[in-house]
Amino acid sequence: MNNPALAPAPDSAIDYDRYDHVRPIRWTGQALELLDQRVLPFTVVHEVCRTSDEVAEAIAALVVRGAPAIGIAAAWGVVLAAAGIDTDDPVEAAQQLEPALQRLNAARPTAVNLAWALARMRRVLASAGADWRDALAREAHAIETEDLAANRAMGRAGAALIAPGSGVLTHCNTGSLATAGFGTALGVIRAGVAQGRIARVFATETRPWNQGARLTVWELQQDGIPATLIADAAAAHLMKTGQVQWLVVGADRICANGDTANKIGTYQLAIAARHHGVKVMVVAPSSTVDMATAHGDAIEIEQRDPAELLSFRGQRVVAPGVSAWNPVFDVTPHTLIDAIVTEHGVIERPDAVRMQALAAYTNRCAQHS
Amino acid sequence: MNNPALAPAPDSAIDYDRYDHVRPIRWTGQALELLDQRVLPFTVVHEVCRTSDEVAEAIAALVVRGAPAIGIAAAWGVVLAAAGIDTDDPVEAAQQLEPALQRLNAARPTAVNLAWALARMRRVLASAGADWRDALAREAHAIETEDLAANRAMGRAGAALIAPGSGVLTHCNTGSLATAGFGTALGVIRAGVAQGRIARVFATETRPWNQGARLTVWELQQDGIPATLIADAAAAHLMKTGQVQWLVVGADRICANGDTANKIGTYQLAIAARHHGVKVMVVAPSSTVDMATAHGDAIEIEQRDPAELLSFRGQRVVAPGVSAWNPVFDVTPHTLIDAIVTEHGVIERPDAVRMQALAAYTNRCAQHS
Repeated sequence: MNNPALAPAPDSAIDYDRYDHVRPIRWTGQALELLDQRVLPFTVVHEVCRTSDEVAEAIAALVVRGAPAIGIAAAWGVVLAAAGIDTDDPVEAAQQLEPALQRLNAARPTAVNLAWALARMRRVLASAGADWRDALAREAHAIETEDLAANRAMGRAGAALIAPGSGVLTHCNTGSLATAGFGTALGVIRAGVAQGRIARVFATETRPWNQGARLTVWELQQDGIPATLIADAAAAHLMKTGQVQWLVVGADRICANGDTANKIGTYQLAIAARHHGVKVMVVAPSSTVDMATAHGDAIEIEQRDPAELLSFRGQRVVAPGVSAWNPVFDVTPHTLIDAIVTEHGVIERPDAVRMQALAAYTNRCAQHS
Repeated sequence: MNNPALAPAPDSAIDYDRYDHVRPIRWTGQALELLDQRVLPFTVVHEVCRTSDEVAEAIAALVVRGAPAIGIAAAWGVVLAAAGIDTDDPVEAAQQLEPALQRLNAARPTAVNLAWALARMRRVLASAGADWRDALAREAHAIETEDLAANRAMGRAGAALIAPGSGVLTHCNTGSLATAGFGTALGVIRAGVAQGRIARVFATETRPWNQGARLTVWELQQDGIPATLIADAAAAHLMKTGQVQWLVVGADRICANGDTANKIGTYQLAIAARHHGVKVMVVAPSSTVDMATAHGDAIEIEQRDPAELLSFRGQRVVAPGVSAWNPVFDVTPHTLIDAIVTEHGVIERPDAVRMQALAAYTNRCAQHS
């Protein structure tokens, strides 16, 4: 690792309030309101979850998506579960909460932030007293606010890597919608545009769920950042034109050696990027790093319903009887990644040794917080 | 070139009649019936063209698509134009036909087969007598029947390269719908499946027009060949699983050095294939070879309406005001191609020298036909 505490660019260059139009998750005190990402950008409607099982279902159904956002939603899901438990004893509460925690954890298998957030909630419960309900609510709130702060820090750190006048390509949605706000890869793009480093933004459609087409370009539009949409398959041709210097993506799980699981297609884009000398930046909070998973082959890749490829908004596209293969994620090996950006700094040319240094630094930060 | 007259596999292994379910182009004697590929697979309807301008419009609108098919359709378009000209003098006829020929030629810029077919029609007219109308009709019929024969020959020659038990991935639609019948890359897949060489067939969606999702898997289904649909972005992940040994694609124009223009995404797939040791086969009739274009950078890449990316069957997907970049083709450099298969044989590791040998052989064949 070059510098885990990379000196950030001056905050003054970025007016964060400008990027606060969209929030996917809103805690009302009694319920969790989730902006329904399945129907954006044309319908802006919130789904109100009043139980943890409703939160788990919303996560599984992609009402809320994006690795950091589902971690936050799951944390609030635990708070909802807590409301239904009638004991002051945190040990008893932990036992009674466990089934709800497990259902939340099972909602999506690939993103580690979900398990990470639930582990934080379990730890708080383990050390709480009779006020365990308040302790859980405080922790969910902390997970959410820390995520926003992490995104702002990553935005500065990632943008600092990008030379002025560059073009960037991003994949899927890693913006406010996928996080507590500002975004991971999209946070870097926001910061880079604000600082005059990024001159051109391209976004892939991101089939089959069209997160790029529906969410990313819409989010950027809210901020007055023009982005050009391309088909997923057009990325290599775009790179060949010389308009793109960085591929900037998020992550659902980063292994101990830097191998990174992210939206299906990331791996293909990273191969094309390497072929063209385009650099690859992975932007994710340290909660995405999973040091317990040694390398990418050990990651469970979520397979979703082939129907997502066979139909479009309920309209059948493909002849009946045809089968489809619908993996939602793939793994980009660390050898194809030029930089991993976390809120604790930048790791260039990630490998197991540098990831270990990042993890040690992250642990120190956690102990001092 | 290894062997321009590669010995074909025995014909007896392939029952061609089995693959004759779908024909995109039907000449009735007075009109050209085009199977409307925009509404397949759920609506099977023919558009009837009675003038050459209707044919040009149908080509531009993708009623008929696929490089060989648009060449055949354009040839019949000339026959329709001829019906409106009142002279027995072929020189006068040629002058009067020229505007119609030019409108046909301008319908799509990238595929060279269109210009090639029109050049054949012009040559026939130049050497015809008072029966020039019949000569044009005979030539259009010859272009169509030769294409079918070429596809069958390519199917055998390409399949011979594929080891038994292999998996193949194809992109876009290169089947009966894109040709006079049987298909180019899909002809190789049909022959390879018939001969027991191909055990697994995967097809990309092929955004934004979904030729793979709508046409390819449907065509293969008619023949009882099961194919698995994948998102365009999932190809590299698929290759990593080891299930694919060959990427088999068509071509819209093959340059003098072997550089190949084909459906957007082909280049990206070829890069991913090389990364994984998956071989790349381009299958196209010799009419696709354009020795007048030295290399890929000289090819005009058709840009289509961004609306194709912004909407889906008239349903808006992307927020208003967002721009899109919609190149329809890209160029795969010859260095990423393992074999070019034409009806005159197979060129392995294509380059300018081997392409020149193929062109010389093609010219000799044309002189002896």
